Amino acid sequence: MKQAIVARRDLGMSPGKLAAQVAHASLSAVEKADAEARRAWKQGGQKKVVLRSPDERTLFELKVIAEDAGLPVAIIRDAGHTQLEPGTVTALAVGPAGDEAVDAVTGDLKLY
Amino acid sequence: MKQAIVARRDLGMSPGKLAAQVAHASLSAVEKADAEARRAWKQGGQKKVVLRSPDERTLFELKVIAEDAGLPVAIIRDAGHTQLEPGTVTALAVGPAGDEAVDAVTGDLKLY
Repeated sequence: MKQAIVARRDLGMSPGKLAAQVAHASLSAVEKADAEARRAWKQGGQKKVVLRSPDERTLFELKVIAEDAGLPVAIIRDAGHTQLEPGTVTALAVGPAGDEAVDAVTGDLKLY
Repeated sequence: MKQAIVARRDLGMSPGKLAAQVAHASLSAVEKADAEARRAWKQGGQKKVVLRSPDERTLFELKVIAEDAGLPVAIIRDAGHTQLEPGTVTALAVGPAGDEAVDAVTGDLKLY
């Protein structure tokens, strides 16, 4: 079981800002997963990978693919209090789900 | 309501590694919060700040202070599959809790 969080590389987010957006996406997708997937993922140590997206469009394309595959998905818009314009889409989380199911969506992306 | 996640700056973590550790700490502390605190925090937009710690010792000092104050706390040790030695302490999450209660623990730290 794993979760992939894909974050935009083109926004110039600071490491702290990036981390907050990734955490937000992660938690939101975990809440959409069913209880059994959550439990299995936690027992395996909450495996996470943080991957890079070149732009907003890629996030939405991956979101559709993940949803079509029936995976838990969350896309995050920043409230815009700092650094970014309000409503800026920053990150997408896919899973927790089986490694192969997640890799089928995000396996071509590089580590952030 | 807010949550503060304090991460070590001295480990040279990549942005993606940092983000994964922060997400892990965030989720773990959220699970320790009571249902009402969780709900109030989510309704307020999951406010998070990511702060820097110069070293491991500071994380443990803050952990004790936060626990004494009765706040939800989680400290994260990396599994060590990549970049870090297994068991390396990387991050501490405090809250969700009231802004003042969190600031009383982490208010002196800088944004990561």
